[in-house]
Formats: sequence, C-alpha cells, structure tokens
Amino acid sequence: MALNFDHETLGQRVCFGAGQATSNLKAALAALEATKVMVIAGDFELPMAKRILSDIEVAVWHSDVVMHVPVETAEAARKIAAENNIDALVSVGGGSTTGLAKAVALTSGIPIIAVPSTYAGSEATNVWGLTEAARKTTGVDNKVLPAVVIYDSELTLSLPVEMSVASGLNGMAHCIDSLWAPKADPINAAMVVEGIRALAAGLPKIIADPTGIPGRDEALYGAYLAAVSFASAGSGLHHKICHVLGGTFNLPHAQTHATVLPYVLAFNAPFAPEAEKRAAVAFGTATALEGLQKLRAEVNAPEKLADYGFSADGIAEAVSIILEKVPANNPRPVTAENLSELLTAALNGTDPAALSTQN
Amino acid sequence: MALNFDHETLGQRVCFGAGQATSNLKAALAALEATKVMVIAGDFELPMAKRILSDIEVAVWHSDVVMHVPVETAEAARKIAAENNIDALVSVGGGSTTGLAKAVALTSGIPIIAVPSTYAGSEATNVWGLTEAARKTTGVDNKVLPAVVIYDSELTLSLPVEMSVASGLNGMAHCIDSLWAPKADPINAAMVVEGIRALAAGLPKIIADPTGIPGRDEALYGAYLAAVSFASAGSGLHHKICHVLGGTFNLPHAQTHATVLPYVLAFNAPFAPEAEKRAAVAFGTATALEGLQKLRAEVNAPEKLADYGFSADGIAEAVSIILEKVPANNPRPVTAENLSELLTAALNGTDPAALSTQN
Repeated sequence: MALNFDHETLGQRVCFGAGQATSNLKAALAALEATKVMVIAGDFELPMAKRILSDIEVAVWHSDVVMHVPVETAEAARKIAAENNIDALVSVGGGSTTGLAKAVALTSGIPIIAVPSTYAGSEATNVWGLTEAARKTTGVDNKVLPAVVIYDSELTLSLPVEMSVASGLNGMAHCIDSLWAPKADPINAAMVVEGIRALAAGLPKIIADPTGIPGRDEALYGAYLAAVSFASAGSGLHHKICHVLGGTFNLPHAQTHATVLPYVLAFNAPFAPEAEKRAAVAFGTATALEGLQKLRAEVNAPEKLADYGFSADGIAEAVSIILEKVPANNPRPVTAENLSELLTAALNGTDPAALSTQN
Repeated sequence: MALNFDHETLGQRVCFGAGQATSNLKAALAALEATKVMVIAGDFELPMAKRILSDIEVAVWHSDVVMHVPVETAEAARKIAAENNIDALVSVGGGSTTGLAKAVALTSGIPIIAVPSTYAGSEATNVWGLTEAARKTTGVDNKVLPAVVIYDSELTLSLPVEMSVASGLNGMAHCIDSLWAPKADPINAAMVVEGIRALAAGLPKIIADPTGIPGRDEALYGAYLAAVSFASAGSGLHHKICHVLGGTFNLPHAQTHATVLPYVLAFNAPFAPEAEKRAAVAFGTATALEGLQKLRAEVNAPEKLADYGFSADGIAEAVSIILEKVPANNPRPVTAENLSELLTAALNGTDPAALSTQN
C-alpha cells in the first residue's frame, strides 16, 4: 500500500525512572542553565513537590492551581513569573498543574519541566487550554510543550487503584481510537502499539500489587504514549461518541469511555484489518477485541451504559448528534442504523463481538 | 520490569507521499514563511531539484556538493547564504547534500527542508559532520535537524535495485543493532519494530517490481525509522564490529553490514529475549533470526566475509581491536573466544543459528 501522511513529531526529552525525580530534575535544570525556578504545584501536590525539590534552589513556590485554568489564575501566575525573572517552570501534579505552567509558557516562552503525578498526559502535548467566563478556549503552540518530562512512578503511588485503572483505560481509549482518527498515520500507530502493550501489561499489575513499581511504571509509560498518539492522531469515532454521551447526557467520563471502547473496536475492526492486527499483536491475543476484553475483565471494567444513567430513550437523540461529528475517514461508514445498534449494545452490555458488520 | 531511560525525541515534521514533493514543499515553505530559498543539490540531483521546484521561487541554486562536507565547501555555501539573506534551505539529494545544508544551518540557524533521494537517513538526525585536512569532525546540534522532511519515493526510483537493497539492509542493521545499543530504550525500540516491519515488507517488493511505488515507499519509510532509531540508541555491537572490519581491514561497507548482521543477532538474541521477541513480531516469524534470514534470502544478501577480502588471518587482530570497543551494556558478555567464533562463522558463512551460546 502506498504511504501518504503528514506527521509532526514533537521534540521533547523524557526522563523515566522510579525514585529518580530529584536527580533527573537537577540534571534537566542544569541542562537548561536555569537559575530562577518557579515551581507550580497545587495544594495537594505541594508536599510532594517540596520533597522532590528539597535540595534544589527554588525562586518561587506557586500553588494557586485551579481546574481548567481560569484566565485570572493564569494572569496571576504570569505576573509572578515576570516579576521574578523566572527562567524555568517546574510543574508537579496532574493536568491542571501542567495546564497552568503551559499558560505561563504560552505568553512568556519560559521552558517547562513537567513532573506528572497522574496519567493525564498533558505533559506530552503542545495543546493549551484557558477558561474565561465558563468558556474554554484551547489552542496548539509548541511553546507550551514541556522541554523535559520527568516520570517517576513513585509519585503516582498516591493515585488510588480505582482511579489508576480508570485513567489507564482512558489511555487505552486514546490508543485504540488513534488507529482510525483523522490524522492516524504509521508513526503514531507505532506509538499506539507500544502504548497498548504497556497499558495491558501494567493495569492488571496495579490491581495485583498497588504499591509495586513495575505495574505503575508500565501504566505511566503507557499513558505517556497514549497522550503522544492521541495528540498526533486526533479524535476518532470513539471520542466523538463519548463526547456526546458526556456532554449531552452527562454520563461520567471514565466509565463511559471504558464501556464504549470495546463496541467501537468491534464496530470498526472488520473495516480496518491492518489496525486490528496491530492492536492484536500489541495485546498478544488472536484479535484486538479479545485482548481488550481480557484486560477489561482483569481490571473489572464497567460493562454497560445502563449502569451510568443512559437509557434507550436517549439513543435516537445521541445518534443524530453523533452522526454529524463522525470523522470523514472512519474506516466503516456510520449510519443511523449501525450506530443505534452500537449504542444499544453498549447500553445493555451485550457481547460486542455480536455486533452486525453488514449494515 | 522497572523502566529507566532518558529519551530525546527530535521535533520534526515528516511529509510522506509519492509524487507529492512539489505540493508538500510549497506547503512547508509557506508554513516557514520563507521568501529567500537556497536550494542545495549536487550535479546529479540538480535536474530532479529543478523539476520539483519548477514553479517555486528560488533565490539561489547551489550545486557545489562534495562528499564528507569539506570545510571549504561549507564556508562557500555559508557565504552565499549570508550574502543572499537566505531564510530557508532546501536540500535535494542524499547524505552529502543534506550534510552541506546542515553545515550552513549549524552556523546560521537557517531552517532546512530536506528532500531525500536515498536511504542515507541524515535528514532524520541532529548529527553534523565536516572534514578538514582529511579529518572528519562530527557533532550534535538541534539547529541542524531539518525542520521538515519531504519523502517522495518517486525520487528514489533512480536508485538502482542493488543499491536500494544494500542501503535497505544497512537500515535493517541500524534497526536491529539499536535494540541493544548504549541508549536503547522502549521508545526507540518501538520505532525499531516499525522500521523492521517496513524494510522487511519493502525490500523484496523492490526486487519484484523495481519501479513499483509500494515497495519504494515502505523501504524509504523504513530507512527513515532506522535513522531515527539509530540516532536515538547509538552504536551497538554490530556497528562496532563492522567499523573495525571496514576501518582496519578495508572490507566494503554495505556487504560487511549485510553479512555480519545475522551473526550478531544470533549471538545476542538468547541474552536479550525481549528484544528478540519484538524483532520476531516485527518480522512476523517465529524468531527474529528466521525473519532476517528469510529476508536475506529473498534479496540475495551477501553470505560470507571470505567473499569480500577477509580471511582467518585477520580474526585475532580484529578480535583484539573490537573487544576494546564493545558497548558496556551489550546483553551478552563478549569474550575473545565467543567473538572469534562469531567472526569465524561470518567469515565462512556457516549457519548463525549454530553459534554457541555457552561461552
């Protein structure tokens, strides 16, 4: 098959090692020749940040972190960075913390060293977001891509098992949906394969041994790859469906993604045999669906949308909204009929392998 | 297994598409807002460059390209770029052409758009090289990494089949050796897997159909991944061995790499089971060695070093030089005894699977 794609690889250094956040941070700050460091960490992560940076000189500790990065919060942080001639931002925490560092970097160009403590994945993308008067604006700018990401899975031990698994399955949705997303290409598919492999290996280990490093390492690494893939490939059918179920029907984010994913996989797989084969190889199972279902069983993933407030009454409306958002390149033509069948199956938790492939 | 690595991803846009060099070039120049373009293409590639750029405004055509980038050649090109206020360099050709563009970028910071016509791979790395008084100096600088690479496999149709295959096998050596090279990590291993897959698919197609695009596409894409992997992971045992065989014994580069590779793979594989398994999956065969040997048979790869001027007399000297260069992280401890056995087998072309794994 002839190859046609336009792939943007984002340049970033990734330092990975449990228990090595401090030494990796020192090396990264030295490489940046940073002398005036501003640490951004919310109240919850501040003690962790103080511990990691205990023998590193910090000019400003900033803990005014608010979800979705309100413009006022961003402006306040930008002012403090400017007043203190900050030359490096160190963010310690999840998506909101990284998001605030990005808001500062966006207008100042100050490099970010991100130290994630969750699987949010924002640290691996050049996407920024700001909220003004309850309206979220997002954009893409390489200035906000952290120059260095320091992954230390010991920092994720405080993530409860349930949240780790939910967040890991969300990463899995990013991976699988990337295989047929609008900007899917062979390079992001290679990242997807590695991400599926790492998440499928790591998540069951977290359940078996919540404080064990190998599972935490693999899940964190898989979440990074999921973010890289998704940022590169964009939103596919799965994310369009879940966005509507969350936005219009208020279904809970993590459970919706975890429930819908096998249905979208079963729906598209026969029409995307190469993607399906890649995912199957990554899972190490005969089919991709078999691998995903095995993982879902091992981590007790949610099984039907009926458990989360969706009902058959909503299907017609959901179908009509989703149909307008289906990516043009989705491998299977999406119709009201086959989409209804998909949603009905996800509602009731019937076997995804039983989805018709003929309509 | 716990994960420990420090991976630098190089930020670069890759536009891939046969017959699309002109449209992709226009888009890339527009994105860079370039107005004063200097095209670098050797005499051989100049007609190709003129064709691709026939309706693009070019300020300077520069064809004084010399192998290994002599300093005087670089200085001349730099002077011309400065005198003409050049704001984008477009290189069309192989390694020497890209190398000259890199020399100009190194001192000027002018962005490069590389349009490769071979599998040399220099376009995917931040490595530069200059030659002064017969001494080659190399270095690493992100300024020399092309901002955009435009791959158009139609431009590689002029590469003779034999050279395409030799160069493709060289890419395969980059891939496989990256699995245990000093900076091997899971991310560059994921690129390796994709590279092996693409090269193993593409090279036999080039032999079967030299002007067919699918094989040329896959081989060019695989060569890109090989360069990315190798630049990231560094030189492993295979490259140390071949460097000595080439440098001290004057064996020909391509044939030496193609011949030695299965022996190094057989030598290390039992000591690197995870790497071996990844490579096997990439080849789609039970073992990595089986996949490599199948490919080598399909492309009529060279079989023994005895055919290229090496003899048993040289083994002791080769062993003593190579032993000092063995990467510390090589998965198998290398001794005079097992290295002699490897070289003897490569000399005579005996079955690599018969190499002892006990010494």
